[in-house]
Amino acid sequence: MQRYFVPENNWTEDYAAITSDDVHHIINVMRMDVGAEIICNHPRGKAALCEIIAVSKDQIDVKINKWLEETVELPINVTIVQGLPKGDKLEWVIQKGTELGAVEFIPFQAKRSIVKLDAKKAEKKLIRWQKIAKEASEQSHRTVIPTITPVKKLQEILDLRENYDVTLIAYEEEARSSNPVMLYDHLNNISKESKVLLCIGPEGGFSEEEIEAFKQNKFEFVRLGRRILRTETAASYFLSCVSFYFEEMR
Amino acid sequence: MQRYFVPENNWTEDYAAITSDDVHHIINVMRMDVGAEIICNHPRGKAALCEIIAVSKDQIDVKINKWLEETVELPINVTIVQGLPKGDKLEWVIQKGTELGAVEFIPFQAKRSIVKLDAKKAEKKLIRWQKIAKEASEQSHRTVIPTITPVKKLQEILDLRENYDVTLIAYEEEARSSNPVMLYDHLNNISKESKVLLCIGPEGGFSEEEIEAFKQNKFEFVRLGRRILRTETAASYFLSCVSFYFEEMR
Repeated sequence: MQRYFVPENNWTEDYAAITSDDVHHIINVMRMDVGAEIICNHPRGKAALCEIIAVSKDQIDVKINKWLEETVELPINVTIVQGLPKGDKLEWVIQKGTELGAVEFIPFQAKRSIVKLDAKKAEKKLIRWQKIAKEASEQSHRTVIPTITPVKKLQEILDLRENYDVTLIAYEEEARSSNPVMLYDHLNNISKESKVLLCIGPEGGFSEEEIEAFKQNKFEFVRLGRRILRTETAASYFLSCVSFYFEEMR
Repeated sequence: MQRYFVPENNWTEDYAAITSDDVHHIINVMRMDVGAEIICNHPRGKAALCEIIAVSKDQIDVKINKWLEETVELPINVTIVQGLPKGDKLEWVIQKGTELGAVEFIPFQAKRSIVKLDAKKAEKKLIRWQKIAKEASEQSHRTVIPTITPVKKLQEILDLRENYDVTLIAYEEEARSSNPVMLYDHLNNISKESKVLLCIGPEGGFSEEEIEAFKQNKFEFVRLGRRILRTETAASYFLSCVSFYFEEMR
């Protein structure tokens, strides 16, 4: 069934109002009318089976028939810090990462990021990234739309340390090291509902200074399998393993 | 260190000859000459540390200094059957799937595949797909280049059943079912070096007839996490979990 995200202020106890572009989508694309059923997602991660009770050009009113019991969200909250990659690869990381259950993406202006975003460009990009996250959430029936933060610098990333239970760095060298820290050992120490931050470098990887700074701030290194992954593949690998460990092993 | 794949016939006991486009790459791009060291990959999955001993316009001779002990290949052999997706998504599936360790890709002309490839188009595509697999193998330091087969039809896929130890179907409905078959239970029954086949539908998923045919031929359904994944994300999810289970848990 078709799903739409409805902003918090549009909800009352028994009703909700759809006022965004979704109105056009419901009327002209889905060709739905009074009596049709849709699922409305509440920003707090709940979803309700709703019935359309009134349709106008710029608003659709729905009655809440039933709140749905759903568990499509990962049992832990994963935030991806992605060193700005080339071209539109970040769009792709956000789309796939959203399908795979991430709750937050933090674009990182890494030393080796070739892309440099000025304030104006960054603002436009951010809007596009948020749109991609919203659409991917709907597509994969998520009940939460991941947040995308503005682009951050190294010190801002280091300062995040205290806001998360676990802070990891995907470090290429770990894949080559003879005594790597296994991803399983990390996941094994993560309790449900923890907040986990994974930092991924851009194409050239992290600089030595960045690695040193992460070390000094007690970020932990992790290996993502034995092969060297491209920067845009690392988040998907990690999120797939988190899903496997917390959803497919229990 | 730079890696090159050298065809089987170009190897002798102590020497190897590079005769492909790689000659140009070594001389003009890497600007290497006699005495320089490179890694040469043998088609059978071995790799050797080699020293350039002679350079000519169309051939480079190398001496094998040392065979390398490497374990960058997945402990099980995973073949991905991918229902032909829209646009260039299959290229993407092959690139990512190669990074993640697949050994074979079988493009499948599924009932709901929008793309229809005639023989001529299919032949050109196949060459491009093989090129992408080769480049992705080198990028991720694989010692094996995955095979890409010509596009196959349903009956040909069903006939593959006996060539594999485990044949799985990624079935969207499993993600929604109340009693899904967990991926862990499948992996748990797979012994190392097994040949595993995973079939993934195109955007519209498999048709009822296809699902029925798979069932009758004893293909097993598997859930890939709780969320609905896009067709191009399924192979990456599965391969990441295989890597996690066989490489990161032991």
